[in-house]
Amino acid sequence: MRVLVLGGDGFLGSHVVDRLVVSGHDVTVFDRFPCGGPSRVGGHGQRVRLARGELGDSPELREALVGQEVVYHFISATTPGSSWDDPMAEIVGNIRPTLEFLRLAAVAKVRRIAFASSGGTIYGRQDGLLTEDSPARPVSPYGIGKLAIEGFIRHCCEASGFDCDIYRIANAYGPRQPARGGQGVIANWIARILEGRPLEAFGAGAVRDYVFVEDIAELMSFSARARAGSELFNIGTGRGTSLDGLIEIFRDVIPARFEVVRRPGRAFDVPSIVLSGERLLKEFPGFCYTALEEGIRRTWAEASAGWKTDSPPLGHPRSEDVR
Amino acid sequence: MRVLVLGGDGFLGSHVVDRLVVSGHDVTVFDRFPCGGPSRVGGHGQRVRLARGELGDSPELREALVGQEVVYHFISATTPGSSWDDPMAEIVGNIRPTLEFLRLAAVAKVRRIAFASSGGTIYGRQDGLLTEDSPARPVSPYGIGKLAIEGFIRHCCEASGFDCDIYRIANAYGPRQPARGGQGVIANWIARILEGRPLEAFGAGAVRDYVFVEDIAELMSFSARARAGSELFNIGTGRGTSLDGLIEIFRDVIPARFEVVRRPGRAFDVPSIVLSGERLLKEFPGFCYTALEEGIRRTWAEASAGWKTDSPPLGHPRSEDVR
Repeated sequence: MRVLVLGGDGFLGSHVVDRLVVSGHDVTVFDRFPCGGPSRVGGHGQRVRLARGELGDSPELREALVGQEVVYHFISATTPGSSWDDPMAEIVGNIRPTLEFLRLAAVAKVRRIAFASSGGTIYGRQDGLLTEDSPARPVSPYGIGKLAIEGFIRHCCEASGFDCDIYRIANAYGPRQPARGGQGVIANWIARILEGRPLEAFGAGAVRDYVFVEDIAELMSFSARARAGSELFNIGTGRGTSLDGLIEIFRDVIPARFEVVRRPGRAFDVPSIVLSGERLLKEFPGFCYTALEEGIRRTWAEASAGWKTDSPPLGHPRSEDVR
Repeated sequence: MRVLVLGGDGFLGSHVVDRLVVSGHDVTVFDRFPCGGPSRVGGHGQRVRLARGELGDSPELREALVGQEVVYHFISATTPGSSWDDPMAEIVGNIRPTLEFLRLAAVAKVRRIAFASSGGTIYGRQDGLLTEDSPARPVSPYGIGKLAIEGFIRHCCEASGFDCDIYRIANAYGPRQPARGGQGVIANWIARILEGRPLEAFGAGAVRDYVFVEDIAELMSFSARARAGSELFNIGTGRGTSLDGLIEIFRDVIPARFEVVRRPGRAFDVPSIVLSGERLLKEFPGFCYTALEEGIRRTWAEASAGWKTDSPPLGHPRSEDVR
């Protein structure tokens, strides 16, 4: 399958690229490469093409779309935190350029679009295990924007005759996640431990469903299968962990000392996000999620061995941030 | 109460202005007035101020917002039909200028925003009586845009400390509704009868919940009461009428002959929209909806007595279209 990965040099995108290459797909990475060249994707030699450009109505994206069958869309200009005080950035940076991309994709006769949406912000303040049928009640502009993009993708699929898969992903974590810019507490904590700084725990009661990034990549490879039809999937383990629980796991797993500073919860932190991923698991018989302890151990191992956990320039998150 | 009505010269807006003036509120109408001056609102003499301008970050809107306590927002640049092939118009014409307005409203320290959302497009393809707790599943870009605007309004209220009321209105009809531009089958049919042309029935099985515009104005006056808190309300009678049923009522009520041409349903026509308006009715003890027969009779009477049923220039619907 010929596959284009928008934001393929980002955290989630690069892992999906790894997974697709292993399956023998013909992969092109489309990214801004703000560091000048690939910073996360790599090691695939000639098996991955690179294309530099911006999301939106650009000649670079038009060119990159030629002949592609499946397009993964991981690009986001915002995070839940950054969007809180700047909702306009959702429109200018995410919704509008995605709609421009959808127009180009229709012209290029792409067959399927796979979108990394946000299970952590779309459902809002609801307790319990959330399924794809739970009502969407986003509270942050980030979640409002993701929901609007989901809608526009579905509409353009229907109007233009291509298929789409929308993945509402819980709290992704794992190697290569940026440690700054509000992109994931586990990456942030690991970076702080490596720097000898205390961990910050915002709203310690908050419950999150942490999913290891390689599991996400495996599950999202579903969109590169030869099939017909459009789907909406949660990606979540169905298990919630409180920040206090996460601190305990860190104490068990991380072979370094650290202190924890308690902070009040932030406006964009909802109390609980736990997603049922059962619908997608039906397509992966026998699939097992990586245990949180194991995932954190592996993330720590890569980070402490020198993986750059710093994100590109602050204030400009350059690729997906799914929570 | 000092009240600003954005789109106050439109169909819904002008009826809300009438209702607010009767209650003694201090009303300003903000509109593009594309016909050069008021075309729907009028007859209130010095009791209504007029301000001309565009929705968005404009000096005219900034000026009009000074000292206002409540702002009704009825402006829309699109209809469900027009949005189908041009989703970008939702972003450029509705979502973005509304966000600009919200910024100005926060600066002006407005106390409450009341938004005319769309009960007919936000719920999508669902059967049965829909409540405010039914999941939103918009299919048209128009509904996707309305849902995003609802979200951004709620967010800005929370972030800036003002209240908001969101009204998801079923199929509004009544005097002053534009007959063209995809804005309501009853106005369109009455205009066709007056012109001696056959009525077009698209997808005759489609069930709609028609609400008389004066009932809507009465119910939306709730936002001009002195109170605290934000609300989401459906406005619907809870009674569905099929297009065939509507044709029967027309035959009973309209003292003129007409023919009906059957057309296939359009992509943006969902099978059924019937809304429970019970939540809002609790605030209006003893309220009775105008019977559909009576409402059509009154709409016909005004239209046949010479009310201009023509909309402003086609392709530029200038004010709200709620369905």
